[in-house]
Amino acid sequence: MAGTLRIIPLGGVGEVGKNITAIEADGEILVVDCGLAFPEPEMLGIDLVVPDATYLAENAKAVKAILLTHGHEDHTGGLPYVLPRIKGTPIYASKLTIGLVTGKLKEHKLLGATTLHEIEPGTEYAVGAFTFTPFRVNHSIPGGMGFAIRHARGTIIHTGDFKFDHTPPDGTRADLGLIAEWGKQGVDFLLSDSTRAERDGYTLSEATVGESLRNLIGAAEGRVILATFASNIGRVQQTIDAAAEHGRKVVLMGRSMEQNAAIATELGYLDGRDGTVVRKEQLERLKPADLVIITTGSQGEPMSGLTRMSNRDHRNISIVPGDTVIVSASPIPGNEEAVARTIDNLFKEGAMVHYEPMTHCHVSGHGSREELKLMLGLAKPRHFIPIHGEYRMLVQHALLAEGAGVSVDRIFVLQNGQVVEFDGTRARLAGSVQAGAVLVDGLSAVDGVDGVILRDRRALANDGVLMVALTVATATGRTVSGPDLIGRGFLPDPDDPVLLAAREHLITALERAGDAHGAEPGYLKAKIHDVLSRYLYEQTHRRPMILPIVLEV
Amino acid sequence: MAGTLRIIPLGGVGEVGKNITAIEADGEILVVDCGLAFPEPEMLGIDLVVPDATYLAENAKAVKAILLTHGHEDHTGGLPYVLPRIKGTPIYASKLTIGLVTGKLKEHKLLGATTLHEIEPGTEYAVGAFTFTPFRVNHSIPGGMGFAIRHARGTIIHTGDFKFDHTPPDGTRADLGLIAEWGKQGVDFLLSDSTRAERDGYTLSEATVGESLRNLIGAAEGRVILATFASNIGRVQQTIDAAAEHGRKVVLMGRSMEQNAAIATELGYLDGRDGTVVRKEQLERLKPADLVIITTGSQGEPMSGLTRMSNRDHRNISIVPGDTVIVSASPIPGNEEAVARTIDNLFKEGAMVHYEPMTHCHVSGHGSREELKLMLGLAKPRHFIPIHGEYRMLVQHALLAEGAGVSVDRIFVLQNGQVVEFDGTRARLAGSVQAGAVLVDGLSAVDGVDGVILRDRRALANDGVLMVALTVATATGRTVSGPDLIGRGFLPDPDDPVLLAAREHLITALERAGDAHGAEPGYLKAKIHDVLSRYLYEQTHRRPMILPIVLEV
Repeated sequence: MAGTLRIIPLGGVGEVGKNITAIEADGEILVVDCGLAFPEPEMLGIDLVVPDATYLAENAKAVKAILLTHGHEDHTGGLPYVLPRIKGTPIYASKLTIGLVTGKLKEHKLLGATTLHEIEPGTEYAVGAFTFTPFRVNHSIPGGMGFAIRHARGTIIHTGDFKFDHTPPDGTRADLGLIAEWGKQGVDFLLSDSTRAERDGYTLSEATVGESLRNLIGAAEGRVILATFASNIGRVQQTIDAAAEHGRKVVLMGRSMEQNAAIATELGYLDGRDGTVVRKEQLERLKPADLVIITTGSQGEPMSGLTRMSNRDHRNISIVPGDTVIVSASPIPGNEEAVARTIDNLFKEGAMVHYEPMTHCHVSGHGSREELKLMLGLAKPRHFIPIHGEYRMLVQHALLAEGAGVSVDRIFVLQNGQVVEFDGTRARLAGSVQAGAVLVDGLSAVDGVDGVILRDRRALANDGVLMVALTVATATGRTVSGPDLIGRGFLPDPDDPVLLAAREHLITALERAGDAHGAEPGYLKAKIHDVLSRYLYEQTHRRPMILPIVLEV
Repeated sequence: MAGTLRIIPLGGVGEVGKNITAIEADGEILVVDCGLAFPEPEMLGIDLVVPDATYLAENAKAVKAILLTHGHEDHTGGLPYVLPRIKGTPIYASKLTIGLVTGKLKEHKLLGATTLHEIEPGTEYAVGAFTFTPFRVNHSIPGGMGFAIRHARGTIIHTGDFKFDHTPPDGTRADLGLIAEWGKQGVDFLLSDSTRAERDGYTLSEATVGESLRNLIGAAEGRVILATFASNIGRVQQTIDAAAEHGRKVVLMGRSMEQNAAIATELGYLDGRDGTVVRKEQLERLKPADLVIITTGSQGEPMSGLTRMSNRDHRNISIVPGDTVIVSASPIPGNEEAVARTIDNLFKEGAMVHYEPMTHCHVSGHGSREELKLMLGLAKPRHFIPIHGEYRMLVQHALLAEGAGVSVDRIFVLQNGQVVEFDGTRARLAGSVQAGAVLVDGLSAVDGVDGVILRDRRALANDGVLMVALTVATATGRTVSGPDLIGRGFLPDPDDPVLLAAREHLITALERAGDAHGAEPGYLKAKIHDVLSRYLYEQTHRRPMILPIVLEV
């Protein structure tokens, strides 16, 4: 370990989300990103998923800095949970990223737990024995960067989330030159975004979306409602530009949309085009044909603007025939059905809905296979670690790298916590550290996806619960009250004939058993469980969770 | 109503699945298909979804026949639930469809509830005052047909699920001529499959998959495992052919795969190629390089062959490096994550996995937009009703029809149960009949997706349940035993400090309240609920379902 460089993805490999990578040399640790993930379907009732930061907490003194590639939740949303365990660690990020993170940390009363350092692409910074140079990349939020990291033990390029857009509407091009220069000097490790490693070709330029938006808004006769990610400031700008071109006003709607736009405007990332953006209060006064509404809900999130509109549940907006809705986003895996349902409901309300792939109104923020190859070709890494992706995406990215000339024994397809150790000549797998998911539910975490809480929730979800309570007299062993049976998610009607018959059946069984064992509560509970689960399965072919309570007097 | 033709989709519009359409004239009803649907994610614990057949049951005497387009579950799986309500209705279908349905009806002891009539494409049959002519279409199961239906009140073409494959491996071409001929004579209504109304171009020929399979099996060095739908007999045949060509033996694995292959072989739809298909018992004796295994699990279904293999949970097969796995299917909407997880796990076990869209190893059974246009062009309908699809797919199909020359006031985008009535000149919406979903859970149905059972299951799934039981003495109003608190899916540890504190808090609150109201159980329950839900939300930010039971002695 001493004298080596260690790379440890603590999150974001084998999954989409909660990206976090530790880079370690000579007792110092740099952390790149600190994201959250959204719960998988089997994580019932979980609010969000953050990285298990035990390894960092145990080495808190060694952690010198957190570098953030950009301001998306899957790269920054873990900070409120991880930062308290490595208090005092400074954060380095671009201006917009800092703007977004500041709000988040303030909310969690954590501004005192760190110092925030704004960094500029192309400038070299030093942290401990590391130096790093951020380089611009294109992504679906402004201020996105990768990091070129140098240490006596080795050189690393970490791409962050990226694509190469040669005609970006805001003129901000990825810094291919810097990557190529490092590639020429020699890069030991490339860690590269695998999100779209299954997509052939190039990701289209944002400029093509701008053209589509201009056409769609130009052709619309009534009101236009566009939904996108609140963080996709570039898309919001293009929509404002297209609206301005057609003489329409723009109203921003939804808490996160309004907040992000305010931050981006303040920091100079968003231009309201001289009064094109107007306040929500103007809504009533504007004719439909003069209006573009930009809102959230492009992922079918239940509480968001577009979803509420589609469900006739929005405070200000009711969809009417003549409305044009543009869903300017693609569903993140897992959200397909929610998005589809929103679109269905909008059509039912009479709107004309434009969405991918039927209309070209979105491009991804991630590079496709040709861009991944270009990154490999520029960086010419000696070793390759695909990051940011489910396992099969990492494998596909690894196969690409092999095709691009990285020899197969220098490619590491990892799982969270696995350690790649580099001694200056050879890299090898060197065990793993604690890593994984912390499932946040309300104010605390639950005990893992296979833990008792989520297992019980899944059982309850499937067949409901039946409570059985009775009171026994300890002295005589006789039941003096009950059994009362209460079902939820299973025969909820207390007079359900099956439930009444089950009660009779139970009473008979308990009477029969009573002579032999008396009122011993443990025995009684087991008996109740046995008798009822068998009887109810026969009657219903369902298996509710049966919960007996025996009270003693 | 008298003297009119009425078309009523009782299922399959605004959804994918449980296809069933009633066609009614002069007091006689023809039913086309009778399918099931798989439960939506919010239908917790539901086994399957079948059509609400109330309308047919109320008009049981009028129902003259059920015509089945093909043998898939979403067109036949509702029969065991609908047939008992319209006992004696004869079923008309192709040989394979009858073979598959017979097994299903036997299982449900319903063979006596119907008579099964094998029908031939191109032949005209009479049922009551209707005549109908089945015509061949291509689909992902052999024996697929559409129906050209004639009545004095009007002419209807119902496509069933279809695509046009001009080079089908089994030589069975769709009968374009028949559709064109009817189109020439005049078709009042076209009811057409909308499943792929969002996909541009043509669906590729099955022949292209055959070529891919030959290449993949030819290039594989070790064992090949291919997963597809058990009903996709054509795909199974192509795999057997490719295996035979490369001198490999084939083993079929999985209950439904073996059953369907047995029926298809018996009825002449599947050819084992002279000993290429061998019994499962031979598995041990065959070298990996001599073996192709065909199994189920292409949808990531938990109990299926491929899923079990990917989870190291299969009785006979453990995945080893060197294995080649071919997922010869696309995920049905809703199954994306399960399929992705299966592929991830297979890669983790060391297999090389081929799947869409990375490798071309599957084509859909449904026609894309160009084929839908061709159908419209051949049938030249006066009126158009898009069927088989979620609402937005129906809308897209309607837009296609408009583009193909059907005037917009003759296109009906429907919801289940809506009635289109035709008086010989004009068609119009004429209200709706009872239709919708019956959610089957075990041996019976639950009360709808917004009913109390599923609402409770969703609440239980989110935050679990906390039971609170106590015994009070009716005479004194005093608590004589308890309160006992038991959490499931919420603070399951009985010694959890939050739970212990909540108990103390509750006892204090009950003591304080006791003086005023005594032991009235309704009051006590409400009090317990109030006190605990408030306290626990403050402490945990979770909202478990709180279930108080008050026993009296």
